[in-house]
Amino acid sequence: MIPQVIIGKKPILRYVTACLTTFNRGSDRVVLRARGRRISSCVDVVNTLRRGFLTDLQVESINIGTETIIVDDKQRNVSFIEITLRR
Amino acid sequence: MIPQVIIGKKPILRYVTACLTTFNRGSDRVVLRARGRRISSCVDVVNTLRRGFLTDLQVESINIGTETIIVDDKQRNVSFIEITLRR
Repeated sequence: MIPQVIIGKKPILRYVTACLTTFNRGSDRVVLRARGRRISSCVDVVNTLRRGFLTDLQVESINIGTETIIVDDKQRNVSFIEITLRR
Repeated sequence: MIPQVIIGKKPILRYVTACLTTFNRGSDRVVLRARGRRISSCVDVVNTLRRGFLTDLQVESINIGTETIIVDDKQRNVSFIEITLRR
């Protein structure tokens, strides 16, 4: 299974570091995953990685879709993005 | 050239309508484009289109990257996303 990094509300560089650590542990792929408003941060993480840290980084695939989550007994639809990176 | 819909700060449904209009005028493709925080809205537009309006809609390609824009004489790097939809 490909290691996942889930994007939350921490600063972008935390997730950049998480990806770098995963690659340094020998994985050749990392999946970045984000929902809702974090989707833009997800793209920021990829661009920061590519610009400053791993210039040979490849975006293998980008997947978007909708998930249904239940908040306070109500169904809500949330968009998500999944970006697979390959070193 | 493929018609573009640029995602700004209007409600999601405006952009959904803009895409539908473009398809109804006979185009078989539409490019959605968004920068920065609007990237998540861009994904929302695609998912709303697919769930409610055009269930046969295909995501042909998704492209992400960084652009340099100049604000108040300062350079800033902004992430962008480009989603090509095919009917």
